Amino acid sequence: MPYVYAFDHQHPQPPMQMKDLLGGKGANLAEMTSVLGLPVPPGFTITTEACNAYMASGWPDGLDEEISQQVARLEEKMGRRLGDASDPLLVSVRSGAKFSMPGMMDTVLNLGLNDASVEGLAKAMDERFAYDSYRRFLAMYGRIVLGVEGEPFDEALDRAKEDSGATTDATVPAPRLRELCEEEKAIVEKATGAPFPQDPTEQLRGAVEAVFKSWDGARARAYRVRERIPHDLGTAVNVQAMVFGNRDDTSGTGVGFTRSPSTGENVPYGDFLINAQGEDVVAGIRNTEDLDHLKERFPEIHGELLGIFETLEGHYKDMCDTEFTIEQGKLWMLQTRVGKRNGVAALRMAVEMTSPDDLGISRKDAITRITGDLLDQVLHPQFAEPVTAVAKGLGASPGAAVGQVYFTADDAEEAAQRGEKVILVRNETSPEDVHGMIVAEGILTTRGGLVSHAAVVARGWGKPAIVGAESVKISGQQFSVGGTVVQEGDVISLNGATGEVVVGAVKVAAGVASEEFHTLLGWADDLRAGNLNVRANADNGPDATNARKFGAEGIGLCRTEHMFLGDDRLPIVRKMILAGTPDEEASALEALRGAQKDDFVEILEAMDGLPVCVRLLDPPLHEFLPSSEELVVKQATSGLSDEEQRLLDAAREWEEVNPMLGTRGVRLGVVKPGLYGMQVRALLEACAERVAAGGNPVVEVMIPLTVNREELAAARYWVELAIADAGHVGEVTIGTMVETPRAALRAADLAEVADFFSFGTNDLTQMTFGFSRDDVSSKTMPAYLDQGLLKRDPFDTIDQEGVGELVRMGADRGRSVKPDLKLGVCGEHGGDPESIQLFYDAGLDYVSCSPFRVPIARLAAAQAVIKSGKRG
Amino acid sequence: MPYVYAFDHQHPQPPMQMKDLLGGKGANLAEMTSVLGLPVPPGFTITTEACNAYMASGWPDGLDEEISQQVARLEEKMGRRLGDASDPLLVSVRSGAKFSMPGMMDTVLNLGLNDASVEGLAKAMDERFAYDSYRRFLAMYGRIVLGVEGEPFDEALDRAKEDSGATTDATVPAPRLRELCEEEKAIVEKATGAPFPQDPTEQLRGAVEAVFKSWDGARARAYRVRERIPHDLGTAVNVQAMVFGNRDDTSGTGVGFTRSPSTGENVPYGDFLINAQGEDVVAGIRNTEDLDHLKERFPEIHGELLGIFETLEGHYKDMCDTEFTIEQGKLWMLQTRVGKRNGVAALRMAVEMTSPDDLGISRKDAITRITGDLLDQVLHPQFAEPVTAVAKGLGASPGAAVGQVYFTADDAEEAAQRGEKVILVRNETSPEDVHGMIVAEGILTTRGGLVSHAAVVARGWGKPAIVGAESVKISGQQFSVGGTVVQEGDVISLNGATGEVVVGAVKVAAGVASEEFHTLLGWADDLRAGNLNVRANADNGPDATNARKFGAEGIGLCRTEHMFLGDDRLPIVRKMILAGTPDEEASALEALRGAQKDDFVEILEAMDGLPVCVRLLDPPLHEFLPSSEELVVKQATSGLSDEEQRLLDAAREWEEVNPMLGTRGVRLGVVKPGLYGMQVRALLEACAERVAAGGNPVVEVMIPLTVNREELAAARYWVELAIADAGHVGEVTIGTMVETPRAALRAADLAEVADFFSFGTNDLTQMTFGFSRDDVSSKTMPAYLDQGLLKRDPFDTIDQEGVGELVRMGADRGRSVKPDLKLGVCGEHGGDPESIQLFYDAGLDYVSCSPFRVPIARLAAAQAVIKSGKRG
Repeated sequence: MPYVYAFDHQHPQPPMQMKDLLGGKGANLAEMTSVLGLPVPPGFTITTEACNAYMASGWPDGLDEEISQQVARLEEKMGRRLGDASDPLLVSVRSGAKFSMPGMMDTVLNLGLNDASVEGLAKAMDERFAYDSYRRFLAMYGRIVLGVEGEPFDEALDRAKEDSGATTDATVPAPRLRELCEEEKAIVEKATGAPFPQDPTEQLRGAVEAVFKSWDGARARAYRVRERIPHDLGTAVNVQAMVFGNRDDTSGTGVGFTRSPSTGENVPYGDFLINAQGEDVVAGIRNTEDLDHLKERFPEIHGELLGIFETLEGHYKDMCDTEFTIEQGKLWMLQTRVGKRNGVAALRMAVEMTSPDDLGISRKDAITRITGDLLDQVLHPQFAEPVTAVAKGLGASPGAAVGQVYFTADDAEEAAQRGEKVILVRNETSPEDVHGMIVAEGILTTRGGLVSHAAVVARGWGKPAIVGAESVKISGQQFSVGGTVVQEGDVISLNGATGEVVVGAVKVAAGVASEEFHTLLGWADDLRAGNLNVRANADNGPDATNARKFGAEGIGLCRTEHMFLGDDRLPIVRKMILAGTPDEEASALEALRGAQKDDFVEILEAMDGLPVCVRLLDPPLHEFLPSSEELVVKQATSGLSDEEQRLLDAAREWEEVNPMLGTRGVRLGVVKPGLYGMQVRALLEACAERVAAGGNPVVEVMIPLTVNREELAAARYWVELAIADAGHVGEVTIGTMVETPRAALRAADLAEVADFFSFGTNDLTQMTFGFSRDDVSSKTMPAYLDQGLLKRDPFDTIDQEGVGELVRMGADRGRSVKPDLKLGVCGEHGGDPESIQLFYDAGLDYVSCSPFRVPIARLAAAQAVIKSGKRG
Repeated sequence: MPYVYAFDHQHPQPPMQMKDLLGGKGANLAEMTSVLGLPVPPGFTITTEACNAYMASGWPDGLDEEISQQVARLEEKMGRRLGDASDPLLVSVRSGAKFSMPGMMDTVLNLGLNDASVEGLAKAMDERFAYDSYRRFLAMYGRIVLGVEGEPFDEALDRAKEDSGATTDATVPAPRLRELCEEEKAIVEKATGAPFPQDPTEQLRGAVEAVFKSWDGARARAYRVRERIPHDLGTAVNVQAMVFGNRDDTSGTGVGFTRSPSTGENVPYGDFLINAQGEDVVAGIRNTEDLDHLKERFPEIHGELLGIFETLEGHYKDMCDTEFTIEQGKLWMLQTRVGKRNGVAALRMAVEMTSPDDLGISRKDAITRITGDLLDQVLHPQFAEPVTAVAKGLGASPGAAVGQVYFTADDAEEAAQRGEKVILVRNETSPEDVHGMIVAEGILTTRGGLVSHAAVVARGWGKPAIVGAESVKISGQQFSVGGTVVQEGDVISLNGATGEVVVGAVKVAAGVASEEFHTLLGWADDLRAGNLNVRANADNGPDATNARKFGAEGIGLCRTEHMFLGDDRLPIVRKMILAGTPDEEASALEALRGAQKDDFVEILEAMDGLPVCVRLLDPPLHEFLPSSEELVVKQATSGLSDEEQRLLDAAREWEEVNPMLGTRGVRLGVVKPGLYGMQVRALLEACAERVAAGGNPVVEVMIPLTVNREELAAARYWVELAIADAGHVGEVTIGTMVETPRAALRAADLAEVADFFSFGTNDLTQMTFGFSRDDVSSKTMPAYLDQGLLKRDPFDTIDQEGVGELVRMGADRGRSVKPDLKLGVCGEHGGDPESIQLFYDAGLDYVSCSPFRVPIARLAAAQAVIKSGKRG
């Protein structure tokens, strides 16, 4: 198989489906060239396989030859030659992985210029343009390919402007640009110890190798970890003949969306700069103009562009974003792809595109296009009080963010590691800032438009961002706006929808869902009906109410330990633990019963008519005792009271080396007889109270952490005893968590005495891997993700192969004994779309997740049904 | 199915094979009666099924009728009737579970006596005998069946002796015995609030029910947990016509063994008392006489008894123990069973019985009869220095024991819970003392013979015991012997082989194996050759040498962390952890390398030519740091030095909530690059040194705690890099522990990059159950075993169903990818016979255990081969 394909290569299948091999950018360039016949500057793509071969064992054999053949073809097609001293061919070199990755090397423009060809360019076009292009290339290649620091280049440009009294880059005269090129070459030679490479073939190989290497760079790795992109995909490299938006005032460059990526409205949207190269738009160095302005200046090109937009939408059946360049009145398409959008826009587009008057996509397609992250954004918090903004920029990514101001990515990262909530404030952002953007609550830039780096990246992540807030003036570790000065560490608030910047912390509240949100989720609910229910995890009345509002069809996990932690409860719990006699213990249990009952009443009321699954006490008892370390220090210094001494003794008695694997779950029920009975009595009293009030409580009692049938049978007996004692008549189903590997293995035994299973995939993951979540998160997990030893954090998305097998095994073995065994999941994976797919395929009846994730789970459940088909 | 069978019932199969139904005692009584035709007093057995029915739902329907039919049959056969006022039938009632259980109700004798029938007995025999029998029955029934405390009965007897100036029980005159009976009835009425039951039918039902209930008593439960007997077997009850060894001086009772249970010598052995009932022998209240004395007094009976012994050995093909009674010159057999024996005796018998001149059993049978516990006893420690004994008793159970003296079972138990080593000192022991005997290192009684309760129980457990040390006088919380007084808590030493009691702690050393030990293990080795190897876990030269002496065929687990803990090592390890720069870390690693190398040289030398499997560092690093609690207290009181402050910071940084599931195992290799490479370099240098010295080092490198292929591949790469760097030429195999559930599930992936697997069943058990061994041992495990929620402690014997499935799965999946994958186990289960059976059946190539368990593992491996057949 070749390592290199021209854009016009006739592939056996549509290139847009070949992103694995060609990368996203290369696949779409080939699609536009060979399928759609759009005006794309010629070029070729070096495949991801070449990159992987390079990673495995260095520069691949034969790659040089393939590249030089393709360059020769390109030279022939363009009638110009790389490095030619009369009318040289120049090329751009761009990375292009399967998934767009801001963490990687982006673009080198004007490659092929050297001391000879710049003269040829000057002759063919004009001197100022030629040397402006050369100085850009020198700095860009120096920085990106040769790894020279950027600051000296910026300083040299600033000096050149100063010397010539120019206010913009575009007005520096040619002779000064010529000098600037010499200065830049000196900067490179000083930094690298070698002169700037003059051979265009060497330049090209250097740029390609730099792209390959950038795949493995720390930033790219961090980005992939964040975005769950496998490390072994590799990147493609696109080499394309240059067209010049910066040639003159009949030229320009822009970025266009076939409809609005921020509202979803079906109106083309774009940013555009006259006499500029693409980097100027994306970097946000100059403020851009919109498509109306393009129409004014270049009405024909505007018309052609809108025609192309229509072609693209018709072909891709989706909103596309594009980069385009106008060179002396001729339009060139440099890139297209299905465009990123925020949640609100995504929902609006998905719903509207189902209309036969629009693209006429199916409802299933509409559902499939909405990811959980997009839905999540819609529910992002919003400002919940009137504010006075000190500045206003462009609302680039909606949502409200509150945090402390930091001015560099490194400072932001450090602060976040200290546990601070951070707002990253920069003039503009670049791929070097990605690690700071990841940790930030929100991003504020003083420059750039809606397609600047900051805007694109933040929108992709659903992170609030404001860009182009020009009134904000950064200077060192502070910024000023009007008369206000904000220091590093001060708190500000951002409204990413309106662009408002507020000093101080603004109160925020949950987002309000759009009409399309409800429409789409309604379609999703229709699709998954009878296949996969969605419940919520909630431990109190307000959470239960909220969950129901989000569409929860019951409670999958009501943790009773939270009821033990209130200020009024803890002393009683401690009394129970410290009890010296059965009587003392019984009286403490009695006191707890009353308190628990009231909690249950509220929850059952909020979920009236829907099932509420109550898990009996799970955590080790020392969680209800003070830390022995504190008490020991007090003992050694000021001494302990009798009460404190007794608490210390109890803490010592109950403390554990590995509490996760200690005396907790049903084991508590075994060593503290009476505890579980008390909880069940409280629940039944609450039921009785609800029935008396005309309600319809539906309860399930869940036993945590079982490992075998004997244990579950004993627990079931305690529950049944309490039911009989209470004279309760309604149905109470009794089941168990499946959260130890043994429970999954012995599911057939457990099913004999269980009405339902609920997979506790958090603990199951901890025990299957031997990963204590608290402990591995600081050292092991980051190292594993970074080194590619794990593709995913198994606590975010269920480990399909290991933990997933146990879930499938537990479900199959349980059902083999009891075909109508109800199966659910109540770990945090219950709200993760990929995990939901696995749960559906494993035959589960419901998932349960935190209330805010319920809409995402409803959607993901529908997507799972679409992907795997309805159950028989 | 009937609930009751007469001893002479014709069962469809030999009754000795029906212990599940009839219990051990009942099965053997029926065997002697119906198959061997031996003189057994008639009677019947109430089955274990009756007991289980009683446990499930109270006194079974129809049981009363069956019992009364059998009583009628018995009355007819004996020509006497229960409760008859002229010549009454009396019966004994004995419990009899499948396995002998000293924790249960034992025996009620003389049942059927009441105020009327005692007169009948007096008429039929004589008054003194009748009232002596009645007073015994009243006290025994009162204590055992009615639950009255024993002390008042003893005091009443003492008063009776005092009043009448009698020195022994046998000389209290009849009138005073008659009074004593009245006093005893009053004691019962006072304690129970009801008169002593006079109706023999009521008495019988009470006794049967008491046996049923005793099955579920705390002591019986504790015993079953200790002896791994399931709680759901139930006990049978044997009702048998009384014969009277205490009738006159032509009567007597005794206990006999067909050969010696303490040496194994093929010479009949027995204890015997004239004019006594069985309880007198077992309780050790009077000192007994031997079979020579029986021969002297009753030559014909002695001959008849030896004939019966021969019949029994010929029939059972094994050593039997018996209880017999002589009533007025007629011999009656009251019980037989295959007798308990100590390890030395068991080995001698097993080997000798293979001789055609002896019983001619097969070598396989000989091997099968030796349990691990018996073998263990042989290797019990012995006194290793000359001693001066303060007292000498009967050496009832061999082995040396050193510990602090306690005089009650409760005190012994408490002391053991405080962590003390305990010697229980009693005049005699009874089933009420079992909990104290369990925790004791050794047992010393002042009364009783080699078949007293203390002797039988201790021998069964292989626990050193001395009985009948008459010179020891206990008084309160001390004992005196000669002029020496020993207080509670003082240390003494026992030699259970010689009967020597020594004040103070004597040095002890490992036992010396007998010739038969080597013979039998040689047979075992022949049998298992090529099927299952036995290696040892050893971390240093002396242990490795020892292991080889015990027959280890390599080292299955060399833990390198122990090499980190020496006084000279710990500061270097801490330097590595505290290292601020890569250079500091590298220099600490370098220093460790030298130290580790020397350790490896010693081990490789001891195991020259045999494989040594070295596990790279496994435990979390905070194990090498001081406890933060101590440092925090010091900080709050006297303050910390800079060094201590740094240690505290490091302890804080590395401390974990659940260290077992934290940053340990191969995860350390990932977060501390260089650590594993250093360890491998040290190992390879040791190899080179051994080769230079003419040795033949065979090394395997083992990676702990892997969960997936990527991780193991990375670790393999570090090892291979170190091998290449070292220029090592010999073969080094590289494998992994399979100790997380995920590793077992994904064994096919792991096998791609592993030369071998070693199942770490300790951690695998912890994670499969979610049982932290350290934590569950104090509360959860005892409760679970006691309540029957677990049949076994899964850390002692592998959980066949759960953890066992993972082992089988890991083995099968690994071999599916790599058929010649070497498989072993290095958890503590590697030395447990039942677990070894599972490992053999799962296809493992070797087990590895602590050096002292190697002989047991060799034997168990042979037994596994016998049970499952040789591999194809």
